[in-house]
Amino acid sequence: MKGLSVSENDRDYIQSIERGFAVLTAFDEKNPNPSLADLAAETGLSRPAVRRILLTLQKLGYVTGNNSRWSLTPRVLSIGQHFSASHALTEAALPRLLEIAEHTHESASLGVLDGVDVVYAARVPVRRIMSINVSVGTRVPAYATSMGRALLAWAPTEIVDNVIANSTFDALTPTTITDEGAFHTALRVVREQGYALTSEELEDGLISLAAPVRDAGGSVVGVAACSTSAGRTTPEAFRTDVAPFLVEKANQLSADMGYRS
Amino acid sequence: MKGLSVSENDRDYIQSIERGFAVLTAFDEKNPNPSLADLAAETGLSRPAVRRILLTLQKLGYVTGNNSRWSLTPRVLSIGQHFSASHALTEAALPRLLEIAEHTHESASLGVLDGVDVVYAARVPVRRIMSINVSVGTRVPAYATSMGRALLAWAPTEIVDNVIANSTFDALTPTTITDEGAFHTALRVVREQGYALTSEELEDGLISLAAPVRDAGGSVVGVAACSTSAGRTTPEAFRTDVAPFLVEKANQLSADMGYRS
Repeated sequence: MKGLSVSENDRDYIQSIERGFAVLTAFDEKNPNPSLADLAAETGLSRPAVRRILLTLQKLGYVTGNNSRWSLTPRVLSIGQHFSASHALTEAALPRLLEIAEHTHESASLGVLDGVDVVYAARVPVRRIMSINVSVGTRVPAYATSMGRALLAWAPTEIVDNVIANSTFDALTPTTITDEGAFHTALRVVREQGYALTSEELEDGLISLAAPVRDAGGSVVGVAACSTSAGRTTPEAFRTDVAPFLVEKANQLSADMGYRS
Repeated sequence: MKGLSVSENDRDYIQSIERGFAVLTAFDEKNPNPSLADLAAETGLSRPAVRRILLTLQKLGYVTGNNSRWSLTPRVLSIGQHFSASHALTEAALPRLLEIAEHTHESASLGVLDGVDVVYAARVPVRRIMSINVSVGTRVPAYATSMGRALLAWAPTEIVDNVIANSTFDALTPTTITDEGAFHTALRVVREQGYALTSEELEDGLISLAAPVRDAGGSVVGVAACSTSAGRTTPEAFRTDVAPFLVEKANQLSADMGYRS
């Protein structure tokens, strides 16, 4: 099947599946209990179309409706579980993330690349008033994060080019890298260091480290990452205190995955 | 929309959406990288139908294919994130679960009911060689777990009846409750105690506690749960050591959700 693909106008493309996911992913924190009219407005579909999709998703157990408001059911979580169960990395990562969280007293995460974004695939939270509040499935832009840079530094050129071509390169803070040349330089620094460090590029006050995790074939398939707040430490102190341990744990996870350096 | 429903034969039912989810959820730990033929066999759909669905899911970014094997992408995790983001309980639970895990040195979980199953909606793992290895989105049968009993003990009759009518009541271990009368008795004990304790009903060696979490309207919408191994303690010692603290944290979480007792 390699190389096969389909466009929206192709007869092989099943538009109702696209519309089903459009409705399912229209529920979020801004509107957790939308009405049919809300969902029609959000997706751009007609009300009769949204109604049929909701009835179908309800029959499948993914949404539930009462008093004209709709909400997602926990069955939606089980869809994501199919990713975790089918990716050995996610299961293997948890013990290493726990070691990182124990050593650093900071939350530790496994990130994987999805297009131009990094998705949190596993996470060990640490209790703090200021802890960085993200959960599994959360997406952040690859161009502005240490996770993205550690995922891209050793990636094939076409993947890096795709991220560069399709990222917004918005200045999320005054220090975000926003041009292609600086981004390529940043990736070279990551390759030389063996890990990525970013400070206040995704948001003010956020300092992050990420180290690559390789599969048996040597490809970087994920990153182990750890973040802290600029109020607690400096980028250079975080680098000195945490980077060697983080790289060691990422290397152990690579070995768990069958990689032999 | 209350009361509206649809059957598979109804013209409002969109079969391609059902088939799209059937293919998406056919990936699992047994076959994380299926071929088109594997997926046709697993779903009972024809190869041409599976091929069109895979091309559509690939275009939407949920699967990726190479060398005739297919796999899920991390975008699948983002679907589950829509549930977490739209359910305040999941976000509110994490700090309380961390307190439970710190206090007990056992992994702590938030469970929610989905049909006859409990789904793990949030989880704080604790590192141990013997730690109970489940992740968010994992499903366990309500009838055989402390989480299920704490979710059902205060539930409307029709929900309890539905679980009783549709559960297998298989003897998963020699001590699993397998008849309706004993199950009703167990729910009454839970109501009297204010929490559920099960010992070795889901699997040998597993002891679990669960306490109800209520929303502002007083409905039990989730449970805080904590498990241990029969090798580390006894059911009665676990009850004495952990149940009061677990109930206190579940009550605090209920208060976080707006419940006033």
